[in-house]
Amino acid sequence: MSVNEKIVLVKRPEGMPGSADFEFKEEPLPVPQAGEVLVRTLYISVDPYMRGRMSAAKSYAEPYPIGEVIMGGSIGQIMESADPQWKEGDIVAGLWGWQRYAAASTESLRRIDPDLAPVSTALGVLGMTGLTAYFGLLDIGKPQEGETVVVSGAAGAVGMIVGQIAKIKGARVVGIAGSDSKNDYLTKELGFDAALNYRTEKDLKAALEMACPNGVDVYFDNVGGEISDDVLSLLNPNARIPICGQIALYNLEKPDNGPRMQTALLKNTALMKGFLVGQYAKDFGKALPELAGWIQSGQLQYAENIVDGFENTIEAFLGLFSGDNLGKQLVKVSEMTK
Amino acid sequence: MSVNEKIVLVKRPEGMPGSADFEFKEEPLPVPQAGEVLVRTLYISVDPYMRGRMSAAKSYAEPYPIGEVIMGGSIGQIMESADPQWKEGDIVAGLWGWQRYAAASTESLRRIDPDLAPVSTALGVLGMTGLTAYFGLLDIGKPQEGETVVVSGAAGAVGMIVGQIAKIKGARVVGIAGSDSKNDYLTKELGFDAALNYRTEKDLKAALEMACPNGVDVYFDNVGGEISDDVLSLLNPNARIPICGQIALYNLEKPDNGPRMQTALLKNTALMKGFLVGQYAKDFGKALPELAGWIQSGQLQYAENIVDGFENTIEAFLGLFSGDNLGKQLVKVSEMTK
Repeated sequence: MSVNEKIVLVKRPEGMPGSADFEFKEEPLPVPQAGEVLVRTLYISVDPYMRGRMSAAKSYAEPYPIGEVIMGGSIGQIMESADPQWKEGDIVAGLWGWQRYAAASTESLRRIDPDLAPVSTALGVLGMTGLTAYFGLLDIGKPQEGETVVVSGAAGAVGMIVGQIAKIKGARVVGIAGSDSKNDYLTKELGFDAALNYRTEKDLKAALEMACPNGVDVYFDNVGGEISDDVLSLLNPNARIPICGQIALYNLEKPDNGPRMQTALLKNTALMKGFLVGQYAKDFGKALPELAGWIQSGQLQYAENIVDGFENTIEAFLGLFSGDNLGKQLVKVSEMTK
Repeated sequence: MSVNEKIVLVKRPEGMPGSADFEFKEEPLPVPQAGEVLVRTLYISVDPYMRGRMSAAKSYAEPYPIGEVIMGGSIGQIMESADPQWKEGDIVAGLWGWQRYAAASTESLRRIDPDLAPVSTALGVLGMTGLTAYFGLLDIGKPQEGETVVVSGAAGAVGMIVGQIAKIKGARVVGIAGSDSKNDYLTKELGFDAALNYRTEKDLKAALEMACPNGVDVYFDNVGGEISDDVLSLLNPNARIPICGQIALYNLEKPDNGPRMQTALLKNTALMKGFLVGQYAKDFGKALPELAGWIQSGQLQYAENIVDGFENTIEAFLGLFSGDNLGKQLVKVSEMTK
């Protein structure tokens, strides 16, 4: 109990990351200074965007420094507080990443009410994942009743929420995912109008044309690459394309070529925009109750894929790129205490 | 005087259009019906976008029908009126295209005041060309003081207006054009901060990096292709990219491949949008006086390249793709009478 364990980046992955890019490291338990608390990690979030930060390339977030802990969203319980506003036992969400314990500035924490919903949802549907789906779809995609929304990575954490919110807004929703069982879940459990398996469709473009007889008004892009090329060939006038992720490209060793898409945007006077959920921080307080309300009314379901044990964190992260996970991928590190 | 002459499309060009794709055709002079006027063409506009309408591919405008006159913007003088609101001798702008005479519904016409500015400007800086630059730059590009704006096709009709409006808004402006004499004009006459020759620069990307030491905030894209790939590699966070044209691609026989752009948009939370000036029709009345004011104050200059004679219309159109024209390309068909 006096030792912290964390996972650090030891070298920048080339292509697909592997366990040799990371190392487990022990160090003394940190001591919270004034305005900080010591948290014990309950859940760790592993997300595709972290792959980007493992590279040295310039992007919206700084590259992870070599030798430092992998940062990202986590949920924890306060063990010791050096801030009178926060007390032992409180559940908090923060950005201390892949470690068993952390001393965190209370300014960086968000309080979680464990009676409202399972605390793990603060990393998923009631956290960055749900907010990413909410703002990308509603602020950029702006689906209208009767329009057609296509979402790639549809069985991923963000994708499945995107599709359900688009249904709530009255759109026809077509998902693209990598297995028939995922697609069954999307259509039978989540109410997607159609779902296509990009691995087994011989002609994805033709299948998309069948599934989108009125063209594509909104394409919520989680994957990039050839799947996106096919969707972009079916745009309607004034289509909107929120770019949320490009997971198909993250592990390529060389930049990938494809058809230039500017002509499709020009012909259809379409809008494409990359976004980052942090841009909407001032509106989180409005969005979270709306998401929670949809969960309570049964209109919004979520799926979590929880791996048990801090020692399995790297494997859980690497699994994101195999396309096998359904919904939000989390690692459970320790039990909440009453 | 009792015969009209027009240019019709006889086959859809494959790759670069040629004179064999068109035919001159004579027909009796049309007789204006109630609500119409007979106009004699003074100036014809030839524009790169017309290449797109010569193909059968779905786009924002219908393909030109085979055997029909090439439609587009023209200026004319009324010879005969069957609408009491319009009288003989009035100067009008409309969309009757490549013909010497036309019977035009007065609802489709805009009155031109020949005392305000040369009537040819109603097809250029005080017409669709100027309005395209104005709305694409200001509504999508939104240049801020001190930002860097790059414009491709910078010595073209739209590009040179874009650059000057960006200067009026206090931005650093870098143009890309195809000859040193054009670039001299841009920097010495129009006040561009820098201009690069894409034909002679050995490494355009490196030259752009030198010319844009603070990165690129707005890229007004008239050309597409490899020039655009280079600019897009230098985007700043929250960059905006109005897609106005893709002239580098219009005459390709096969779709062109290049680096996928979505990653650059995602990394920089950038916005890319194709647009069509017609989307802003309700605001033309606000924009035209502002453009005219800038001309009067000397802040906005324009260049016209006027070819004389209806018989040279096809040649003037084909010349657009050689990259030799500076500013707006017009054909003078007949003299205005007092």
